[in-house]
Amino acid sequence: MDNIFEDLMDIYQSIGPHIHRTPIMQSRLINQRAGAEIFFKCENFQRMGAFKMRGAVAALQGLSDAERANGVVTHSSGNFAQAVSLAALAMDVPAYIVMPENAPAVKKAAVRSYGGEVIEVESTLEARQSAADQIITQRGARFLHPSNDYRVILGQGTAAAELLLDLPDLDLVLTPVGGGGLLAGTSVAVQYLGNSTCKTIGVEPSTVDDAHHSFYTGVIQSATGEQTIADGLRTQLGDINFPLIQKHVEDIVLVEEGEIIDAMRWIWERLKIVVEPSSAVPLAAAFKHPWAGRIGIIISGGNVDLNHLPFGSLNG
Amino acid sequence: MDNIFEDLMDIYQSIGPHIHRTPIMQSRLINQRAGAEIFFKCENFQRMGAFKMRGAVAALQGLSDAERANGVVTHSSGNFAQAVSLAALAMDVPAYIVMPENAPAVKKAAVRSYGGEVIEVESTLEARQSAADQIITQRGARFLHPSNDYRVILGQGTAAAELLLDLPDLDLVLTPVGGGGLLAGTSVAVQYLGNSTCKTIGVEPSTVDDAHHSFYTGVIQSATGEQTIADGLRTQLGDINFPLIQKHVEDIVLVEEGEIIDAMRWIWERLKIVVEPSSAVPLAAAFKHPWAGRIGIIISGGNVDLNHLPFGSLNG
Repeated sequence: MDNIFEDLMDIYQSIGPHIHRTPIMQSRLINQRAGAEIFFKCENFQRMGAFKMRGAVAALQGLSDAERANGVVTHSSGNFAQAVSLAALAMDVPAYIVMPENAPAVKKAAVRSYGGEVIEVESTLEARQSAADQIITQRGARFLHPSNDYRVILGQGTAAAELLLDLPDLDLVLTPVGGGGLLAGTSVAVQYLGNSTCKTIGVEPSTVDDAHHSFYTGVIQSATGEQTIADGLRTQLGDINFPLIQKHVEDIVLVEEGEIIDAMRWIWERLKIVVEPSSAVPLAAAFKHPWAGRIGIIISGGNVDLNHLPFGSLNG
Repeated sequence: MDNIFEDLMDIYQSIGPHIHRTPIMQSRLINQRAGAEIFFKCENFQRMGAFKMRGAVAALQGLSDAERANGVVTHSSGNFAQAVSLAALAMDVPAYIVMPENAPAVKKAAVRSYGGEVIEVESTLEARQSAADQIITQRGARFLHPSNDYRVILGQGTAAAELLLDLPDLDLVLTPVGGGGLLAGTSVAVQYLGNSTCKTIGVEPSTVDDAHHSFYTGVIQSATGEQTIADGLRTQLGDINFPLIQKHVEDIVLVEEGEIIDAMRWIWERLKIVVEPSSAVPLAAAFKHPWAGRIGIIISGGNVDLNHLPFGSLNG
C-alpha cells in the first residue's frame, strides 16, 4: 500500500469533524437517458456549498501552529476563497483573500460572511500574486494554492473516497477538471478504493480545453483564457496534480456549452437540487458517451447566482 | 385514540411501498434569520416531486378493485394530476386527467410521461367539471378530488406524521394552504403525534386569502381568483377538510408576494434545493413572525418551470 493512500485516509479521518458526509442521489430518468446507473455525490450540500471545503480544511490542518499563527492567504474569487475563510474561522486563524476589485459583490460578501478579510486588487494575475506576496512578506501569512497542493489534492479526493466507501463497485468516476485538484485527488481514491477495473475520467468544457491538451501532449498547457459557463474550470493544471493525473486518470474528454446547460437543467429538474454549472459538466459527458455500468459523478458545488441562470435563454 | 388517527397510521403504512421517506434539512443561516430552529421536510424529493403523491396513492388504495377497474379521473393542471397518473400507473389503473387546453405544454407532457391520458377542454371550471362528469358516466371512472377527500387529506398528512416520528418535540408545524388537504392532514398528524403544546399554522398568499377568511368567519369562502406566484394555492377549502382545520389548526396567516420570493431565494441559496414557490410560503411567515422554538415546515414540492423563475426580476 502506497504512502499516498495512507495520506488520503489520514486526511479523510482528520477533516471529518469539519465537513459533512454528503448524500448520494439518483434519478431513474437520468439513468434512462444516460444508459447507465449514475450515482451523484452531492457536494453542493457540503459546508459552504462545495467540495473545496475538504481541501481547505486539509491544507490548514497540515500547517503547524507556528505556520498558521500569522494567518493564511490565497487569491481566488471562487469557492476556495470561501472555503479557506470558513475553515480558518473554525481554527481561529486569520484568512486573507486577494480578490479582483471587479469580482461580484456577492462573492466578496460571502468571503466576509465566513470571516475572511478581502484584499481588493486590479484584475490581473500579476496584481493578485503581488498582493499575496506582500501579505506573505509583511504579515508572515502562509500561501494556500486552491488546486496544486498535496494536501488540498487529497482533501478534494476524500469526496470520491467517501463515495467509494459507500459504493465500492463503481465502474467509472467522473469529475469536472479545472485546476486539476479534484480530478487528481479523485483518481487517487479510485486507484486505491475502487475495484481493479474502475476508471477515472475528467471532463472539461471545450472552450477551456487546456487540461485535455496537457493530458495528450504530456506538457502542462496554459489556460486558454476563453469563457465558459462553468467559470470555475478556467484555471490550468499544476506540477503537483498533473503527474497524478497522468498516472491514474484514463482520459480527459470535452463537452460543449449547450451540453453543459442541458445537463444542468436535467439535474435541477430531476434531482431537485441547486448545482453550479461546473457540476453539470460530467453528466454532459455521460449523456454524450456510450459509457454503461455504474458511474459515480462528483457534484462539485451549488454556489450559483440565481439572478443569472442560463435556463431562460434556452427557450424563453 | 380516535379513529382518524388509526386511519392516518393505516394509510401511512399502506402507502409506504409507493412513496419515498423524504429527508429533513436545516440551515444555520436560515435559523439565525428566523430566530428559531427550522426543520424542512423535503417533499420536493418525493416521487414525482411533491407531497401530492402521498394523497394520490392513499386515494387509489382506498378504492376496491371493482371501483378502480374503469379508471380514475381528476381535473387539475398541477401536481395532483401527475401524482394520480403515476400512482394509477403503479396499480395498473387508467388515469384520465382533464386539463385546460391552455395549460403549459410541459405540464401536459409530464402527465403523459407518467401514463395519464390528458383530456383537453376550455379553460373554465364548468368545462372541466362537465368533461370529468362525462368520463365518469361514459367510462365508469371514479372521480378523485385533489384536496377535499378523506383519504387524500390523511395521505397528505403522512408527510407531517413522518416528520413527527423523526422529531416528536416540535413546537409548531407550518404548511402552505390552498385547497386545504395538506393543512388539514398535517393538523391531524400534529394533534396525535406532536406533543401537547405543538401547534399547526397554515400560511396563505395575501392575494388569495380565502382560507384565512374562511377560518375567521367560520364559512368556506370562494377562491379570490387573483394571481399569486404560488399558483398551486389559488384553490379553496372544501367541506371535508374545513371542519378538521377548524378543529385542529391554530391560525391561518398571510404573506406577501415579495416575501414569498425572498423566502424562496433563501431556500434555494442556503439549502441548495429546488422548490416551487408554494413551498416558500411557510418560511416567509417564519421570517415575519416572532415564532421561536423548533418549527417544522413541509416543503410541498419542487416542480418549477426553470424558464420562468422569479429571481432575475428582483435585482438583475
